[in-house]
Amino acid sequence: MTNIAFSDKTKGLSGSAIRATFKLLADPEIISFAGGAPSSSLFPCDVLGTVAEEIFRTFGNTALQYGITEGYAPLRELVRERLVRQGIIHEGDDIAITTGGQQVIDLTAKVLLNEGDCVVTERPSFVGGLNCFRSYNAVIDDVPVESDGMDIDYLEENILKKKRIKLVYTIPTFQNPTGITMSLEKRKKLLNLADRYDFYILEDNPYGSLRYSGEEVPSIKSLDVSGRVIYGGSFSKILSPGLRIGFFSAPSEIFEKMIVCKQVTDVHTPVLTQLIAYTFVTRYDIDAHIKRACELYGKQSSFMRSCISRYFPDYCSVTNPEGGIFLWCSLPERFDGEELFRKAVEKKVAFVSGAACMADPLKKYSSFRLNFSNASMENIEKGIRILGEVIESY
Amino acid sequence: MTNIAFSDKTKGLSGSAIRATFKLLADPEIISFAGGAPSSSLFPCDVLGTVAEEIFRTFGNTALQYGITEGYAPLRELVRERLVRQGIIHEGDDIAITTGGQQVIDLTAKVLLNEGDCVVTERPSFVGGLNCFRSYNAVIDDVPVESDGMDIDYLEENILKKKRIKLVYTIPTFQNPTGITMSLEKRKKLLNLADRYDFYILEDNPYGSLRYSGEEVPSIKSLDVSGRVIYGGSFSKILSPGLRIGFFSAPSEIFEKMIVCKQVTDVHTPVLTQLIAYTFVTRYDIDAHIKRACELYGKQSSFMRSCISRYFPDYCSVTNPEGGIFLWCSLPERFDGEELFRKAVEKKVAFVSGAACMADPLKKYSSFRLNFSNASMENIEKGIRILGEVIESY
Repeated sequence: MTNIAFSDKTKGLSGSAIRATFKLLADPEIISFAGGAPSSSLFPCDVLGTVAEEIFRTFGNTALQYGITEGYAPLRELVRERLVRQGIIHEGDDIAITTGGQQVIDLTAKVLLNEGDCVVTERPSFVGGLNCFRSYNAVIDDVPVESDGMDIDYLEENILKKKRIKLVYTIPTFQNPTGITMSLEKRKKLLNLADRYDFYILEDNPYGSLRYSGEEVPSIKSLDVSGRVIYGGSFSKILSPGLRIGFFSAPSEIFEKMIVCKQVTDVHTPVLTQLIAYTFVTRYDIDAHIKRACELYGKQSSFMRSCISRYFPDYCSVTNPEGGIFLWCSLPERFDGEELFRKAVEKKVAFVSGAACMADPLKKYSSFRLNFSNASMENIEKGIRILGEVIESY
Repeated sequence: MTNIAFSDKTKGLSGSAIRATFKLLADPEIISFAGGAPSSSLFPCDVLGTVAEEIFRTFGNTALQYGITEGYAPLRELVRERLVRQGIIHEGDDIAITTGGQQVIDLTAKVLLNEGDCVVTERPSFVGGLNCFRSYNAVIDDVPVESDGMDIDYLEENILKKKRIKLVYTIPTFQNPTGITMSLEKRKKLLNLADRYDFYILEDNPYGSLRYSGEEVPSIKSLDVSGRVIYGGSFSKILSPGLRIGFFSAPSEIFEKMIVCKQVTDVHTPVLTQLIAYTFVTRYDIDAHIKRACELYGKQSSFMRSCISRYFPDYCSVTNPEGGIFLWCSLPERFDGEELFRKAVEKKVAFVSGAACMADPLKKYSSFRLNFSNASMENIEKGIRILGEVIESY
């Protein structure tokens, strides 16, 4: 019990699960499938060193002085043009730069949610999204993810018909943590429900560019004609997470309100990191860079899946994503993911247990998330072999 | 009227005043005393270019990969040691890195304030602080600033004896917008009241290193023995605001809660900018750099004050700060600062009108803030001369 009168919205908040995981990652002996980090092997360090040095030489004052809250104008325009060209946003949509994709979730929550308001997430969902909604004291309802995305009928029958909801949070493409992509049909249905039941959709799309098989599915934003969708994206998985460059597009009134909130949060995203992202994209071939990432992640994903079929018992199932950086493993219900996590860590292998990805983390879950993007092939094989042994001997 | 059901805390928020000011700053013909930017002439662009290039060459993966929420450990330790050595924090105090000093205000507000909770600020105060508290639907009461800082008797008699308050927000050293420093006696009294009336103090100290005359006054944090003070600092005014590197120290439970909230806000501050600040401070003489800033700002402050005595009517008064980057001008009550602002902008001179710095911005105020740190001596003279004419002809 604390003596400090924390705000109602934050008094129950605890970051210990994630923070414990971060500490594990620091142990060099751990094979970690727990993070969500892109492969360090892809970082264009030499190129960015040259870019940074040149920025200081030619735009030093811009890089070091205050910038505007919406972001460095040429970067905003560059991102806007790319997203329009990719058919993700409409020609008239505006873009602002954020301090990572996480800030898009935070700003959306802040401008839309009162304490006690209801948010719907996928089950399972992204732990950073769930914790963010918790930090606003939102009530989180979740909807099962099927092999073609969120169960839209469940959403309508079990939630929308029973209560007023304010926001649906979805990662429709290569979802975190399942890797699953929502079908076009479900995207249309979700938008239709948004109009009928008057809620907004936060389409979080950090992994969308990382497709290594299958066909593109239009963004929910691109299908939106009535101003229901806030779209969030990021350079974290295609260039660097350490630079913390995210972006969003939103209906204009929401866009403006999010900017006002960003101003009181961090004034603006660092200018230097924005200039680096801008210069890299304009000067080098980011699409070739993304293609290399897709090739690597496709190989890692398929290798991890083949290791799973070799080393895990037959009763384990795993998703088969067409992109992104995660697999989701499901075990029979007798397994407790938290217990499995502890046993695995004793054997120096880490993952994210299912509970961390759930609106109600206190129940037992037998599923867990595996990340492959920042592990060597050798460690993927070794880690999955050990994990198989841990499951067998459970 | 909007159709969008914004959260109660943000529906009344408007950033238009600041945003309008930012747009003015973009007009190259405007002589702006409105911002709070350090002098671009001090930016060590060449040095930082070399530093950045070297970081990418030797620590590229660290710079580009995810970091931990508390910040880059060597930078945290470096800042901690400096603050301990300067007597600002105690030996056992911890430090975390934030995305600019503004984030310290935001995290403090988030962990401590429910909607409707009362915050006390100085009158006048920092617009970014005021707007941040507004964005949490806090009730803001303000306490007049006297020549030796916040009127502590007023605080007790008119506020503390009448209502429960949660937080006092103060910029005790070279206050924004007045430049005034709170006396040691008042700092002790404020701490004493915090214990008696059970509130916390956010000591925001972005300007503390920029002393060009007078004697150091101990930080409120250094006087705190009962865990009442959250201390916020920043590299914005001593190195670069564009890098967005701030930091804080807080009683351990508050510290932990602020970190959990930072995690859901932006995960961590960009690693590259932290590495740049770290490398600059360890490799170059930041104290010599700060000394150059103090010399320049001392000259600018004293020159702007001499221009004011020359060009402003005798009924204008102005503060005489011992450091920092702002002067506060007071005119007779018949002047309306907003009206004066519009007239000044017509003549291509900008400042921050008093209303922007007040808890109740809808009243009329005859005072205004002048910033001198990023203006040339020539523009200081020209701008103050024009402003004098605008006042004369009001």
